[in-house]
Amino acid sequence: MKAFMDDNFLLNSDTAVELFNHVKDLPIVDYHCHLIPKEIAEDKHFTNITDLALGGDHYKWRLMRANGVDEKYITGDAGDDEKFHYWCATIEDCIGSPLYHWTHLEMRRYFDYDGPITGDLSGKIYAHCNAIIAKGDFSAWNIFKKFHVAQIGTTDDPADDLQYHKQMIENRKHDSKLPLIQPTFRPSKVQDIESPNFVNYIQTLSAASGVQITNRETLHKALDNRLDFFHEMGCRCSDNALDPPVFVQQPGIPAEADAILQKALKGGKIAHDAALIYQTDLMLWLGKAYNARGWAMQLHMGAQRNNNSLMVQKLGTDTGYDSMSDESFSQPLAKLLDALEMEQALPKTILYALNPTADTMLATMIGNFQGGGIKGRMQWGSAWWFNDTKLGMEKHLRTLADCGMLARFIGMLTDSRSFMSYPRHEYFRRILAQLIADWVDNGEFPNDMPRLKRIMADICYNNVVEYLGIEK
Amino acid sequence: MKAFMDDNFLLNSDTAVELFNHVKDLPIVDYHCHLIPKEIAEDKHFTNITDLALGGDHYKWRLMRANGVDEKYITGDAGDDEKFHYWCATIEDCIGSPLYHWTHLEMRRYFDYDGPITGDLSGKIYAHCNAIIAKGDFSAWNIFKKFHVAQIGTTDDPADDLQYHKQMIENRKHDSKLPLIQPTFRPSKVQDIESPNFVNYIQTLSAASGVQITNRETLHKALDNRLDFFHEMGCRCSDNALDPPVFVQQPGIPAEADAILQKALKGGKIAHDAALIYQTDLMLWLGKAYNARGWAMQLHMGAQRNNNSLMVQKLGTDTGYDSMSDESFSQPLAKLLDALEMEQALPKTILYALNPTADTMLATMIGNFQGGGIKGRMQWGSAWWFNDTKLGMEKHLRTLADCGMLARFIGMLTDSRSFMSYPRHEYFRRILAQLIADWVDNGEFPNDMPRLKRIMADICYNNVVEYLGIEK
Amino acid sequence: MKAFMDDNFLLNSDTAVELFNHVKDLPIVDYHCHLIPKEIAEDKHFTNITDLALGGDHYKWRLMRANGVDEKYITGDAGDDEKFHYWCATIEDCIGSPLYHWTHLEMRRYFDYDGPITGDLSGKIYAHCNAIIAKGDFSAWNIFKKFHVAQIGTTDDPADDLQYHKQMIENRKHDSKLPLIQPTFRPSKVQDIESPNFVNYIQTLSAASGVQITNRETLHKALDNRLDFFHEMGCRCSDNALDPPVFVQQPGIPAEADAILQKALKGGKIAHDAALIYQTDLMLWLGKAYNARGWAMQLHMGAQRNNNSLMVQKLGTDTGYDSMSDESFSQPLAKLLDALEMEQALPKTILYALNPTADTMLATMIGNFQGGGIKGRMQWGSAWWFNDTKLGMEKHLRTLADCGMLARFIGMLTDSRSFMSYPRHEYFRRILAQLIADWVDNGEFPNDMPRLKRIMADICYNNVVEYLGIEK
Repeated sequence: MKAFMDDNFLLNSDTAVELFNHVKDLPIVDYHCHLIPKEIAEDKHFTNITDLALGGDHYKWRLMRANGVDEKYITGDAGDDEKFHYWCATIEDCIGSPLYHWTHLEMRRYFDYDGPITGDLSGKIYAHCNAIIAKGDFSAWNIFKKFHVAQIGTTDDPADDLQYHKQMIENRKHDSKLPLIQPTFRPSKVQDIESPNFVNYIQTLSAASGVQITNRETLHKALDNRLDFFHEMGCRCSDNALDPPVFVQQPGIPAEADAILQKALKGGKIAHDAALIYQTDLMLWLGKAYNARGWAMQLHMGAQRNNNSLMVQKLGTDTGYDSMSDESFSQPLAKLLDALEMEQALPKTILYALNPTADTMLATMIGNFQGGGIKGRMQWGSAWWFNDTKLGMEKHLRTLADCGMLARFIGMLTDSRSFMSYPRHEYFRRILAQLIADWVDNGEFPNDMPRLKRIMADICYNNVVEYLGIEK
Repeated sequence: MKAFMDDNFLLNSDTAVELFNHVKDLPIVDYHCHLIPKEIAEDKHFTNITDLALGGDHYKWRLMRANGVDEKYITGDAGDDEKFHYWCATIEDCIGSPLYHWTHLEMRRYFDYDGPITGDLSGKIYAHCNAIIAKGDFSAWNIFKKFHVAQIGTTDDPADDLQYHKQMIENRKHDSKLPLIQPTFRPSKVQDIESPNFVNYIQTLSAASGVQITNRETLHKALDNRLDFFHEMGCRCSDNALDPPVFVQQPGIPAEADAILQKALKGGKIAHDAALIYQTDLMLWLGKAYNARGWAMQLHMGAQRNNNSLMVQKLGTDTGYDSMSDESFSQPLAKLLDALEMEQALPKTILYALNPTADTMLATMIGNFQGGGIKGRMQWGSAWWFNDTKLGMEKHLRTLADCGMLARFIGMLTDSRSFMSYPRHEYFRRILAQLIADWVDNGEFPNDMPRLKRIMADICYNNVVEYLGIEK
Repeated sequence: MKAFMDDNFLLNSDTAVELFNHVKDLPIVDYHCHLIPKEIAEDKHFTNITDLALGGDHYKWRLMRANGVDEKYITGDAGDDEKFHYWCATIEDCIGSPLYHWTHLEMRRYFDYDGPITGDLSGKIYAHCNAIIAKGDFSAWNIFKKFHVAQIGTTDDPADDLQYHKQMIENRKHDSKLPLIQPTFRPSKVQDIESPNFVNYIQTLSAASGVQITNRETLHKALDNRLDFFHEMGCRCSDNALDPPVFVQQPGIPAEADAILQKALKGGKIAHDAALIYQTDLMLWLGKAYNARGWAMQLHMGAQRNNNSLMVQKLGTDTGYDSMSDESFSQPLAKLLDALEMEQALPKTILYALNPTADTMLATMIGNFQGGGIKGRMQWGSAWWFNDTKLGMEKHLRTLADCGMLARFIGMLTDSRSFMSYPRHEYFRRILAQLIADWVDNGEFPNDMPRLKRIMADICYNNVVEYLGIEK
């Protein structure tokens, strides 16, 4: 029996240990996450362990609800000590859950606490962590430094003025050990023409861009303005939520899309079919715009959001009420990529799907559009959200190796809203090391350590740096 | 090499053995099955091993057909000895099949026979088993006692008079070692408005309830009557086959559903779209009615039934011609649950899907509706039917642990038509013990035996007892 | 640590070694592939290793594209030595890929080369292989003999004159060690009524059959002619690409299908819905025609082809731009099989799906139509195309064992376009041996070696020989 979560956690052979040790101290590139730029720019100092570990973390909230904890002690007005208690009293029984490991890694790596985490001990742990936090150097920047974070990609609205990114560029001039913080262009609100807030949003976008948006042409002009501004501010990546991907194939789409947009801007009600035409046209334009700037295009697909209307009304979005769609999307996805490729305007693209039933489909889909002499031009992104677990990561890595070229994979990202999630890179590196060691130990790949170590380092660091053009 | 199916069958470490031993003698709760109440109430005595082991067991029939056995020797007029012979001659080659294990467990646990099961030996085994059966104490009740069966949930039509359940309540007053037998409310015939038998069925339901059903209001009155009667008879669970789930979202559904029902009752032909409106409205009403009574709502989804019309014409339904649908249903399922939650009328709910592609979708769907301070309010039910295998159960348990809270799972049920299926609880307990031991032995969970044993006992017995409010 | 790909490659116990050794020299039946009959008939002699190993092999091309190799060095005008170099420089990093193993097996079994395969060594390997090829006995027939190939099923158009099959029948009279080469009837062009080439193709078919096709009746007459001719030439198998399966259920289909066909033959534009009616009617007629001749019907489902129009325009079809559909098809598939069964005209049928999400659905679908006293009448065919990997084959075999009867499986086929793919039968046999050994070593099946060896030999050779009626 192995000891619980010791140095060789998840590493079951000398090969695995050697491979992990080779990459464990490599810098972290977390090119897609949901950290709040203001909190980064202002070097947020945390109030207490509940603020740090539970604030905004809907993964944990979902487990507490499954355990029958009253909402008062999750997102309600209970005290931070009580909330932390109920979290500990939940996680203590979460056998087989990735959050069991994440939570223990958090306690070990952030607070040097490696004892049990249980409801009974919650008071002691709460005091231990808060004493460390109270010392005053427990802040965003210090966390980055502690974990060798080299780059972070935030997620930003096209109308955002990126003032905090400006500030971070300044910060970095004075402290070269801070990570590179790059904005990511996420045009969800531009896509969502069916939303009651669409017209308001377009006014905001007009103001931000200085272009009065009245039709398709001016929308593109405004977006071009924002894309250029984002580029200037260091953005090299877009993020597009396609829930699900749509592709309406017919001649005359730009003209129709223009008419639909104009109708919407005049307050007209947009039918769902019309929205699909607008969205198809927009996504094609955006793809070309990304490609023209050499950006990577991320497509996040297959989420089914806000399933519990009652709770979303109470708590807002992103509070733990999302899950997976099982709708088909291989056809529209292929057509979207094909249409861009046909115009030789397909950007480097990273695909993610929330439902793991799409795994093999995606792993083979990227093969249709590899080429152009670019290593790993098409990527199937790291196991996403509910799949960002030992089980999910192993399936992702094995399937990618089976159907594509694992050695060119650009690796892990957290997609997280929390400053506590950097040990998940360690978790990924352990799982990858064990997977590769399994193949070697089983005679399925030669025991060629220099090559194996290079592949490990490529997946954990070098590939993404090259792919996104990050300066080392 | 391990010996074939010895005491440590499926248990590969001391941890696993210790965990299994802790739960192996716990009572069995089989809260959803298809045993025939008459056979239970009358303490059925079996004719011979073919009657007991092969009668009605379409799992076994399917294997015999795959092996090229003539239907005469499966469901036809061949002798019971011949049928048993062909079964043995089939199972002997069924390497990797769950039925290989089930059959050997049946022979060991019911007949103390642990030799090989082959066509060559079928005569000897037939005689051995029949000699034991002929002794006269081989009956339903004795089987229950032998396997420590504490509770059984049968599956019953709303129009049923539950006379055998009444009799069983009496039986139990005289023999406290008999299990609690609870009816389950399964309104399939109420849902199936497209059936040519619908009008006749509604007349039966009118008669049973004493309410003349002529429209939506009187249907609900009649159903309320039956629900109350079932409750009085001990029912605490409903079972709803949604093949697939439907949800038509529009204002004015109750009025439309009323008109559709009235048309059907007058013998009008109901279009499929109209049926969906009726079924949406009915399911919402039923959900609220279950919730008002504190019942659990089971939803069985994704079966594609009666695929071979020729054989179903010959042999009837439930004879081995069902398989899995691959249609999408995450959207209507979420909307159904959401609509009930919005009215704060969502019952405790147990979801089952037949196609394992739905596994991760369901495991994350339940997370959207956990809450209300109820432990494991939403359940993803035990691996169902074709998934009730070592492979299927491991996938179910791992996925549940990955996306939810395994320790709050209400555990195994057989869904069986056979009195021979209780060793499948043993099979489940072995698989669960090994799975948990794997995590512990690999350093992924602490070797905290009191906690591990409690979690084992909770999943195997305590959780379901608490969930369904069964008196211990 | 096991040595890299030694004699016990993929075999991890004595049981596995013994089982593999029992089948390793059995003849190979490769009943479905895409070898070119002309190349077989004329006993193709290869130019060099690039011609042999890379010509037409889009599996390898896809990996090279993923690795960023310029198309010039894949399908372009670069020298054969350069192409081989870039292939070696790609495969050297393909950890976890089935092609890594296939390529090393090819080098070992065809060229006795068991050193590393890397870009650095590509010149040396190129020279080594070409020296062997230059000796002159490196030809199609010698490859067949070396690998004990007993039967090959090619894939042929109904209008084909099968002249090379005639020649091969002659060849075989003079050399009894040559494999039996059987044509397979693949009516894709008859199905594709939406193609601009449909009318031309029907004229070709008219000419080939001597029947002027003007309507449904004459189409069937022409097809009957070709089916008879194929039968006479040894064909016992059809191959039908259903991307996806369609089934339009309504009375009057034959008359409608007739009208649609006549319209198409007059150059009329066929709407997609009309095409589905024609295809449903055609597939039903074909199924009956196959059944009448005692043929097996292969259904290949779920491919999503030609996703990259730009590259398909440049390079043509089957050049590496296909992947998987995720569309639902359990309903139309069941209805097609059911309609044939209802007329007692369902042939022996082999189902294949490209997306592994269909695995359990297919494994249970075949169970609906087993029967008639034929062993394994319905087959779920060997893991297809992107699934023809260690991961995919294990999943296929385990799922088949879980839901059906593995011991009656007709085993491996390559579906390949290359003469280099016979080691994939060895790969399959190793994986099967290890899988079965796992069960035995874990006490899940008795260590009954005679039975285990018979099951191994049945799956690897005897079952398919019996199923397809091949003379031993």
